[in-house]
Amino acid sequence: MIAPQLWVAIPDSLVSDSYHLREKTSKLGMIGRACSIFGVSRIYIYKDLSGNYEEDGETIKTILEYMETPQYLRKRFFKQLKALTYAGLLPPLRTLHHKLEIPLSDVKVGDLREGVAIKSGDRTLVDVGLSSLIPLEGMVKNGERLTVIFTSKHPDLKCRVAKKEEMKDYWGYEVRSAPSLGKLVKSIKSDLIIFTSKKGRIITELWSELIDEVKRANSILLIFGSPKRGVFEILSDENMNPMQISKFIINTMPDQKTATVRTEEALLASLAIFNLAIHL
Amino acid sequence: MIAPQLWVAIPDSLVSDSYHLREKTSKLGMIGRACSIFGVSRIYIYKDLSGNYEEDGETIKTILEYMETPQYLRKRFFKQLKALTYAGLLPPLRTLHHKLEIPLSDVKVGDLREGVAIKSGDRTLVDVGLSSLIPLEGMVKNGERLTVIFTSKHPDLKCRVAKKEEMKDYWGYEVRSAPSLGKLVKSIKSDLIIFTSKKGRIITELWSELIDEVKRANSILLIFGSPKRGVFEILSDENMNPMQISKFIINTMPDQKTATVRTEEALLASLAIFNLAIHL
Repeated sequence: MIAPQLWVAIPDSLVSDSYHLREKTSKLGMIGRACSIFGVSRIYIYKDLSGNYEEDGETIKTILEYMETPQYLRKRFFKQLKALTYAGLLPPLRTLHHKLEIPLSDVKVGDLREGVAIKSGDRTLVDVGLSSLIPLEGMVKNGERLTVIFTSKHPDLKCRVAKKEEMKDYWGYEVRSAPSLGKLVKSIKSDLIIFTSKKGRIITELWSELIDEVKRANSILLIFGSPKRGVFEILSDENMNPMQISKFIINTMPDQKTATVRTEEALLASLAIFNLAIHL
Repeated sequence: MIAPQLWVAIPDSLVSDSYHLREKTSKLGMIGRACSIFGVSRIYIYKDLSGNYEEDGETIKTILEYMETPQYLRKRFFKQLKALTYAGLLPPLRTLHHKLEIPLSDVKVGDLREGVAIKSGDRTLVDVGLSSLIPLEGMVKNGERLTVIFTSKHPDLKCRVAKKEEMKDYWGYEVRSAPSLGKLVKSIKSDLIIFTSKKGRIITELWSELIDEVKRANSILLIFGSPKRGVFEILSDENMNPMQISKFIINTMPDQKTATVRTEEALLASLAIFNLAIHL
């Protein structure tokens, strides 16, 4: 079985209930971790039209992308941004694409690494977090981030850009922005859209149906609301209703004992449940 | 169906991988929340015998108990402890037993509230977070924390200690200490003991068996390891093996994409899954 692609959508108002950047950072740390544990390949940040959360949206994007970038590439891609003041608090993802430095002689043909292209005269070298830069076969833009595959061994290490089908392991997530939730769900090419909502149907009622659908899907989009407003309220800003979009508007936490569940909590809990459904 | 009692066991070394009390506090905030969302009624903190984690164990106990205590009672039960330096970061539980202040005239006969007993001459009054202390019918110790039920209305408000069967809503968790994991599992009266472990069987393999057992149980104990050592290693300190204790040693996160999953992440994810199993 090929596991479906997992995508999640979160609002740019997600961290608006935390006043301090330190707390926003912790919250986003949980989100980056949850997405990585369960192999989410795409995170959409959609605009919550009820307010101006542009700065928060930028913070979310910056922090999630920073977490996803291997440590040795962070300095090249992230300047000293205000959003990263508390980046030291972010937990490491510890995914397979965050590789440690190894001796050049241990690199094998076929190994994959994340890198950044550096033009040097008419050659292109790649910084892949090893003790020397590696010559790249092929053309790319200076400063581009890429996944390379090694084509020859030390002392003549060379690499080229890896093809999609060569990347078998989970290779991190991509962060995208969406102008609104309504526009996202109208334009997205996903086989299965699932809204999570306290007002949705209890997951147990449609569990077996859900397992069937999840197994059939090539990609699944899981949508989360904001701390203040659920997906019904958020879509109503665009005169839409989740029920027009999907039959899966699900409360993944039957009989919850707290008045509210935070988005970062709902995300981890829901991903755990969908991961189970995918593997059942 | 009556949902089973949910108990969890965590090691006193749980926060030993965080150096700063601030991070330990955030982690414990997640744990208190996860337990409350899913109605955990008992949290056992067992000693990890591989080191001396006494101070951390105290911190865990203090912070989890502090979170569970309604805000208006916290000053009475918690002095200015070092462990609570960053208590301001703890998220509110927002469970039904954390009640807001309401006008005395809005209190109904049969309402439940958490309170503390205050002896006043030969009378006992209870501070239940309302604008005046409430006379208690019956005998209790001065300073005792209790759950009371109102027996008459304003302006003659009175209450007595509530009986267990009168408490229908989730009413928070109790924190207990255990000398070791081995001793805990040997002495506990639980129908179903479940170990969570990356080295356990994949949950999908025994999902239907698990649902049956969970439905039959009156109480379920879910056991978690530490950041450094799983339940196999921890029990081996006492020459024991989880497999002697239970047939359920479960990896709740099939195909995880990160090298490690933190206990607070595993706790929330696993509780979400067991909550689903209980309600299926």
